[in-house]
Amino acid sequence: MDRAKTPDLAALDPAAVRAAIRAGGWTGITAGLAPGFVQANLVVLPASDAYDFLLFCQRNPKPCPLLEVTDPGDPHPGRVARGADLRTDLPQYRIFRRGTPAGEARRITDLWREDFVAFLLGCSFTFEAAMQRAGIPVRHLDERHNVPMYISSVMCRPAGTFAGPMVVSMRPVPAGLISQTVQVTARSPLAHGAPIHIGDPAEIGIHDLSRPDFGDAVTVHDGEVPVFWACGVTPQVAAREARPDIMITHAPGHMFITDLRDEDLEGDPR
Amino acid sequence: MDRAKTPDLAALDPAAVRAAIRAGGWTGITAGLAPGFVQANLVVLPASDAYDFLLFCQRNPKPCPLLEVTDPGDPHPGRVARGADLRTDLPQYRIFRRGTPAGEARRITDLWREDFVAFLLGCSFTFEAAMQRAGIPVRHLDERHNVPMYISSVMCRPAGTFAGPMVVSMRPVPAGLISQTVQVTARSPLAHGAPIHIGDPAEIGIHDLSRPDFGDAVTVHDGEVPVFWACGVTPQVAAREARPDIMITHAPGHMFITDLRDEDLEGDPR
Repeated sequence: MDRAKTPDLAALDPAAVRAAIRAGGWTGITAGLAPGFVQANLVVLPASDAYDFLLFCQRNPKPCPLLEVTDPGDPHPGRVARGADLRTDLPQYRIFRRGTPAGEARRITDLWREDFVAFLLGCSFTFEAAMQRAGIPVRHLDERHNVPMYISSVMCRPAGTFAGPMVVSMRPVPAGLISQTVQVTARSPLAHGAPIHIGDPAEIGIHDLSRPDFGDAVTVHDGEVPVFWACGVTPQVAAREARPDIMITHAPGHMFITDLRDEDLEGDPR
Repeated sequence: MDRAKTPDLAALDPAAVRAAIRAGGWTGITAGLAPGFVQANLVVLPASDAYDFLLFCQRNPKPCPLLEVTDPGDPHPGRVARGADLRTDLPQYRIFRRGTPAGEARRITDLWREDFVAFLLGCSFTFEAAMQRAGIPVRHLDERHNVPMYISSVMCRPAGTFAGPMVVSMRPVPAGLISQTVQVTARSPLAHGAPIHIGDPAEIGIHDLSRPDFGDAVTVHDGEVPVFWACGVTPQVAAREARPDIMITHAPGHMFITDLRDEDLEGDPR
């Protein structure tokens, strides 16, 4: 059976989903695909920028939880995804030059260089699944939106040329479920972990929830409290400061699907 | 009061203990000093070797749990220890040239270079204190020995020039306390976390517990099981492969005392 051609993509295993994406059979966002498996943010940089960015991740593990770093020139993250190719296996890429968006692409095979290092960072999809299993609503999923993201006033610890504010994602949570939300998400430190702020958005420099810097606004009902998590878009904002010659990331929502299971990100690292 | 001169060094806070060490008032091992505060392994390398070593730590977080990485030339790890100086605040240093031990020193002020990067790694003292609080015996402490350490057959994931086997420490645990030992130590992933092996030493390439590669042998009583943890001496063995021009570490047992509390290393990173 050619599994890449079956209609129910969501039910496929990670390798089959990646194969479908590679073949051009899927160009949309990856939310809901290969449920139970870890999806990842991608950041590709030349080796000359890799030390500063690796240190930035070490110093800012909540927005930048590292799952894997490839060797220079190697597009195969074999430890987290057997047979995968980071040049073709994401549905959409975003290219930055000197820290500024410079277009999107469906594959980056022609842009790949022998000095490129790829960083894979954990993603909030992992803890959203855990929230849903615990009966906690995830508003943007219910409203079929992208999660709202904001540039906060919380500053990252700088590392070499990389510096800037932390980008946060927001999910409204009923007041009675906040404690459970913290506990459920804290279990996955490699997927941004526990919230970094709960309550008044102004305290972290956010003055209008209806106008996110990335993604879409969502409804906040009476009795709900905005809860904020560190977000994997943070490197894109730090790159405005670092201005690397070239940086390639996933396009928002178009993540890399790994072979890791969500529960692999819980607790003690391997 | 000049606290550095009081006789009961163990009761002092971390800054006072560091001041006493800096002043030459303490040259011994640091076990038992500033109880409740995190002690750290030190690895100093030239910037040219720093990327490979940082990646080695990322790929091997159990033996190399990173607490802090300083900027090149900066000997002050201000985030984990206010006012500290890594050139003077450890009681004894070990110097490696081309990966080979080349002497020890009481301070490294004269060796310090503008391109030196210092790495601080979590240390087993943190989880040993937690074991003792939980009523689990820690044999080498009871026998007033250094912990026995072995070069295992478990290979680290290589990173650039750094590669080699994992060094492990061993503590014999009564069979009835193994489950509790795993749980207690798993709470501190930044202090090596849960054991990497429990039981037959031969399964990880250790054929004679009475002949450790580092530290001292300890008694294993009937009914006790050897339990093995990843160990912060691993970088010294990886350096035999990498052969950096110069590498400076703490001398075994002579750790750097931080301002972090043991409980700061539990759970979700900050």
